[in-house]
Amino acid sequence: MSTTDSSARTGPHIPRDPADDHTEAMARRRRAMLTEYTGADLSSVTTGFDPAAARGNIENFIGVAQVPLGVAGPLRIHGEHARGDFLIPLATTEGALVASYSRGMRLLTACGGVSTTVVEESMQRGPVFSFASAAAARDFGAWVSARFDEIKRVAEGTTRHGRLRDIDQFQVGPLRYLRLNFTTGDAAGQNLTSRAAAAACQWIAATHPAHPAYLLSGNIDTDKKHSQINTLLTRGRRVVAEAVLSRAALHDAMGVDTAELFRWRQAGATGTLLAGAAGNGAHAANGLAALFIATGQDAANVAESHASLTYTQLLDSGDYYWSVTLPALIVATCGGGTGLPTQRACLDLLGCAGPGNAGKLAEICAATVLAGEVSLAAAVIHGDWVAAHERLGRNRPGASGR
Amino acid sequence: MSTTDSSARTGPHIPRDPADDHTEAMARRRRAMLTEYTGADLSSVTTGFDPAAARGNIENFIGVAQVPLGVAGPLRIHGEHARGDFLIPLATTEGALVASYSRGMRLLTACGGVSTTVVEESMQRGPVFSFASAAAARDFGAWVSARFDEIKRVAEGTTRHGRLRDIDQFQVGPLRYLRLNFTTGDAAGQNLTSRAAAAACQWIAATHPAHPAYLLSGNIDTDKKHSQINTLLTRGRRVVAEAVLSRAALHDAMGVDTAELFRWRQAGATGTLLAGAAGNGAHAANGLAALFIATGQDAANVAESHASLTYTQLLDSGDYYWSVTLPALIVATCGGGTGLPTQRACLDLLGCAGPGNAGKLAEICAATVLAGEVSLAAAVIHGDWVAAHERLGRNRPGASGR
Amino acid sequence: MSTTDSSARTGPHIPRDPADDHTEAMARRRRAMLTEYTGADLSSVTTGFDPAAARGNIENFIGVAQVPLGVAGPLRIHGEHARGDFLIPLATTEGALVASYSRGMRLLTACGGVSTTVVEESMQRGPVFSFASAAAARDFGAWVSARFDEIKRVAEGTTRHGRLRDIDQFQVGPLRYLRLNFTTGDAAGQNLTSRAAAAACQWIAATHPAHPAYLLSGNIDTDKKHSQINTLLTRGRRVVAEAVLSRAALHDAMGVDTAELFRWRQAGATGTLLAGAAGNGAHAANGLAALFIATGQDAANVAESHASLTYTQLLDSGDYYWSVTLPALIVATCGGGTGLPTQRACLDLLGCAGPGNAGKLAEICAATVLAGEVSLAAAVIHGDWVAAHERLGRNRPGASGR
Amino acid sequence: MSTTDSSARTGPHIPRDPADDHTEAMARRRRAMLTEYTGADLSSVTTGFDPAAARGNIENFIGVAQVPLGVAGPLRIHGEHARGDFLIPLATTEGALVASYSRGMRLLTACGGVSTTVVEESMQRGPVFSFASAAAARDFGAWVSARFDEIKRVAEGTTRHGRLRDIDQFQVGPLRYLRLNFTTGDAAGQNLTSRAAAAACQWIAATHPAHPAYLLSGNIDTDKKHSQINTLLTRGRRVVAEAVLSRAALHDAMGVDTAELFRWRQAGATGTLLAGAAGNGAHAANGLAALFIATGQDAANVAESHASLTYTQLLDSGDYYWSVTLPALIVATCGGGTGLPTQRACLDLLGCAGPGNAGKLAEICAATVLAGEVSLAAAVIHGDWVAAHERLGRNRPGASGR
Repeated sequence: MSTTDSSARTGPHIPRDPADDHTEAMARRRRAMLTEYTGADLSSVTTGFDPAAARGNIENFIGVAQVPLGVAGPLRIHGEHARGDFLIPLATTEGALVASYSRGMRLLTACGGVSTTVVEESMQRGPVFSFASAAAARDFGAWVSARFDEIKRVAEGTTRHGRLRDIDQFQVGPLRYLRLNFTTGDAAGQNLTSRAAAAACQWIAATHPAHPAYLLSGNIDTDKKHSQINTLLTRGRRVVAEAVLSRAALHDAMGVDTAELFRWRQAGATGTLLAGAAGNGAHAANGLAALFIATGQDAANVAESHASLTYTQLLDSGDYYWSVTLPALIVATCGGGTGLPTQRACLDLLGCAGPGNAGKLAEICAATVLAGEVSLAAAVIHGDWVAAHERLGRNRPGASGR
Repeated sequence: MSTTDSSARTGPHIPRDPADDHTEAMARRRRAMLTEYTGADLSSVTTGFDPAAARGNIENFIGVAQVPLGVAGPLRIHGEHARGDFLIPLATTEGALVASYSRGMRLLTACGGVSTTVVEESMQRGPVFSFASAAAARDFGAWVSARFDEIKRVAEGTTRHGRLRDIDQFQVGPLRYLRLNFTTGDAAGQNLTSRAAAAACQWIAATHPAHPAYLLSGNIDTDKKHSQINTLLTRGRRVVAEAVLSRAALHDAMGVDTAELFRWRQAGATGTLLAGAAGNGAHAANGLAALFIATGQDAANVAESHASLTYTQLLDSGDYYWSVTLPALIVATCGGGTGLPTQRACLDLLGCAGPGNAGKLAEICAATVLAGEVSLAAAVIHGDWVAAHERLGRNRPGASGR
Repeated sequence: MSTTDSSARTGPHIPRDPADDHTEAMARRRRAMLTEYTGADLSSVTTGFDPAAARGNIENFIGVAQVPLGVAGPLRIHGEHARGDFLIPLATTEGALVASYSRGMRLLTACGGVSTTVVEESMQRGPVFSFASAAAARDFGAWVSARFDEIKRVAEGTTRHGRLRDIDQFQVGPLRYLRLNFTTGDAAGQNLTSRAAAAACQWIAATHPAHPAYLLSGNIDTDKKHSQINTLLTRGRRVVAEAVLSRAALHDAMGVDTAELFRWRQAGATGTLLAGAAGNGAHAANGLAALFIATGQDAANVAESHASLTYTQLLDSGDYYWSVTLPALIVATCGGGTGLPTQRACLDLLGCAGPGNAGKLAEICAATVLAGEVSLAAAVIHGDWVAAHERLGRNRPGASGR
Repeated sequence: MSTTDSSARTGPHIPRDPADDHTEAMARRRRAMLTEYTGADLSSVTTGFDPAAARGNIENFIGVAQVPLGVAGPLRIHGEHARGDFLIPLATTEGALVASYSRGMRLLTACGGVSTTVVEESMQRGPVFSFASAAAARDFGAWVSARFDEIKRVAEGTTRHGRLRDIDQFQVGPLRYLRLNFTTGDAAGQNLTSRAAAAACQWIAATHPAHPAYLLSGNIDTDKKHSQINTLLTRGRRVVAEAVLSRAALHDAMGVDTAELFRWRQAGATGTLLAGAAGNGAHAANGLAALFIATGQDAANVAESHASLTYTQLLDSGDYYWSVTLPALIVATCGGGTGLPTQRACLDLLGCAGPGNAGKLAEICAATVLAGEVSLAAAVIHGDWVAAHERLGRNRPGASGR
């Protein structure tokens, strides 16, 4: 893996002017730059909203919540789906977030960029079937395994894009939990998975001699919840972002030595184990929530998607290998909120709108998370974490969250 | 606790007209009703955005992401801070979510409403100090305990609203992790907590004879991450919502018997343990994410806030006692995104804008979560879960997430 | 499932005489009864030890630790491997343990006995392979899957009894963790699994073009450690014990009503989730440790084997369905300590010595655990838990653990 | 911390003779050496058993289970309670275990020994009180806090050695879980804690105006179960063992480089997080189970005690700092099985019999665990793990666990 490429073009420059920052003129300059660089039409992010656009996305519609959009980057990604220098739209109300992620992105880009890999893919529904005895439940499990092809046919008959990959089985007492794993194309897939699983369960209950009672979710799909089962067995996409931080570049940009970073890394990872936390990284949820809102993802999926596994090594060269694995990243480029005007514009900005792009978006998410990890970890060690929040976030007149 | 109160006024009626649903005219009618009922000025949810409003909330501003807003309810709450029938603004792109929560709210209201209680409150920063030996780390712990008053003084010197409540200590090897617990008034408090903890750490490192090295976060504050430590020791507010579902009302509204609900509850709770999930409920993240975006909360906090503990009992009467405990609910009515135009309007709708209202908002969040749990659990058992998504969410022309 | 069978013969009677309890004469009477009932030769439990017997079981041999043996039961088991009324040898130093388990066993027997089912079986070794990138690690995973037959052949070439069932794969960053699942016949199987996995890894590293570095255990086999992966995916045998407690029998025997038991069950299960415990039962480790020491199992495996999942229902009849699932029960009837004199005698007492009996022993373990759960839960509710410990455990002259 | 002290006397030598290993003559030579070195009378480990000795430890006594005893070491410990070179008695049936631990002990001793520190101490009982509402439960919590002195007096009135240190409180719905933390002197303390907690609960229920229903254990004491709450908040003693492995000594003894050890450490720690395991070490349960059986500890407590947190650093010198923290180590030198003949002899061998020695025994346990970690980790990397088991464990004629 390459380290700092001194000849690298670091992509487009985001216009900045501290004295004139939050004005429509500056926002317009930035949009113009983004449109020029990506071709995306960003007019929706600054205009009114047509209620008809929300049909299918909401009931009892009364208007829109407006969440400020900033742009971070550029972030160089060497993915299998995402390739190039990206400008990342982030919708957030938390001061310093865009600046912090942007700093990490520029540093990673200066170090040669981020490699991204989608490792696995599956979306689940996890019904539970109840039996008169544990033995009957176990035998039912074998019955299901033997009828996988028929179950697959029934399930897939309800969906154009969903494919039943396999069925995990787990037993507790007289209960047999199934975990139906689907690939769902470019949709997040919870709804198609539910529909397909419902058809499968109906068929199973009607066909199996015991006609077992069942619940469509026995809570092992852990929809909208973090879980260890997701960390192990993947929910949505399992994506890795990895980079090699050059010792020199990190020191120049953030005043931190890689050896110090690695030494404290041991304490942070231990703290995670002590706390029983959803990951041994820092704050994946920050970048994901902002990117999810910007691009029309289901923000509730931050619950599952924020799980992360960090694995790092201090190389003999003094450079620092850093990987982040997101085991339960749920993203879509079709369906849900992805077709709404501003959300669609942000997907366009990433070249991710529409079919064929979910893997690309997943890679961008993972690379973004890595940028945030690098930036925050360095800031905490260097001690300017609090200062940045002071400067960027809370020091405007009237801010009262002090 | 009372059950169905047949004389209860069930509050205001949200205008509905399936044939004319997603139009500006209908949205305007709903806003007018809401303004009449609550006095809230909702004009911002349908107009343009002034970039200056986002100062302190974002960098590299380019516009706004527009998230559809719907209103659910009414939801009758008997809290210590929230009292009355509430109409709940939800910002989401997920079809059927508002309808489902609204159905749960109306059922709970028909059953006499939801009782809510804030049980505990604390926000943390969790630094780690490193020593030459475990013995030195342990003795440092005693040193810190003996100097609590001085540490409190130093920490509180940096903040108007933050108060250092106590300091938990945990040791691993030669590392001493501190968990500084603050109350933070009506701010979420992560920033003020960081600032106060930074001051405390500097003072400690300068004053303790060993001048120990430290990291401001040793990852046991689990900022932006679900964790067992949060479930145990609270992060933000620990809030309980509880209600008694009348057997008759549940059956009439949703065709489900309480005994059946309780029987399946045993399987769902067991599935949670099997999966190692962040809670034994269904989908707290859905309601929280929508309410967080609507009211200017930090959406990344869904990671922590979605943890939930459900405890239920089938009463001898056949009615069903249902409680949901949110151990790590992070909300604010000051600071962050709470002052932005549409977000402020939604807080106004709830009577929660500004100082003195964080406890009220926390109670509303917990009651909303309970409504979603009731609605989804009944739908899954009754079998109309998938059907509702079909009808409300994905059946518009061109929807492709199928 | 049947409830109390009033005509049931409750098996043999264990001689008791409080005034003459801990004497060689009484011990001899009990041994005579056990030998008469089971045919087992119990002479070794009261005689000297031949050092040569310990060859292969210990190094630096200096003698034996003598752990008191008591017998509990009878316990009626309706298993697929274990059938009949069993007298259970328990080696422990904890007063009241044998009495408490014995009480639960007699109650269960009076209620018709315990049904037991082995649901799944696998023993693991979990190597980790390291690659230059996440993409290379992922592709390695596909390479392994495609060569399962060859890997199986290589692995099984090292063992007579081990069979490679399948290989789970998990990825973090550039690391690919494999979990090789073996069936191991009547051995616990850790050693044969290690040997077979070592051969497989050597073959893989030599054959795969990247000749990847690997570690034979990447800590996901969680040998000698409780883990969520074991609870989900089984380690050793996954065994269920289930019974229906008659309301009348429970009340008569222990003064507790099933409805009260079920009501408190909800609080106990919630406490488990709050605490992040290895199971929602009470004290599986007690019975397992005592049975493990008596029968020559590896006592360190209590770490894994004590995980348990309790699932109960209050039936409409007022009777109480109770199941305990042990997801990671590791037992052997060959190898390890099973051939030592006293341990072999205890296996004989259960009809479990030698090949073909591991499933039977597993069922006996699960039924024993259930008996302990029933006894303790009822005692805690009835309030005589502390009293029993006083009476049986600590009240002898000179006891100082008060 | 010192590294290899080349002038260190490495304590007494354990007689070995491969050709004559498992004979009474060799066992006698070893016992003589141990008695000479420690003064302990070891005659009980080779003679018959007086049934009267088991009074209070067992019911339905039938004899003894004989577990082979080996001795490992010497292990140099620099503790606050344990100081000197120790020979460690281990009762196990697992071939290679004593040899492996002994190897680790000799290496650590050659590197200057192990530092040990008891960091915290508490034993719990965790009752749950049930109320009509969450608000009532919360207010009860404040009531309890205000009456700590009275509760302490009532609880301590039942025990000579127990002291109520403090009471943790946790709430879920209308349930208030208390965690009464006691120090228990040299007893493990579960029984005295139960008795004291029972008295406290009776007093609370009688005194509080609501006369709340309660259960003496709400499952958050997690007696006989691993749990995250124990890892965080300690159960029994929290003990740290730490050492610095000299790079040269490790290489000479085991052919492994510290840098390689540290590199793989990153993968092992990540595997732990992936698996959701009770610790990020290797096999604490092995050493603990063997030491527990030898010294009359409750072997069921392996369930709790095996949890471990490893924290390591590769020093600039190339030496390797290694710490193991046992957060829930439960040991006693009084009560339980500690007074039985062979168990008492093993405690004598360690200088740990009777009052005043529990801290010393805890330190010896932690140092023993560290020795096992060092030995196994090096063996896995060096590749002789499987070979050692072959050579020492399973290769005797007739062994069938292959």
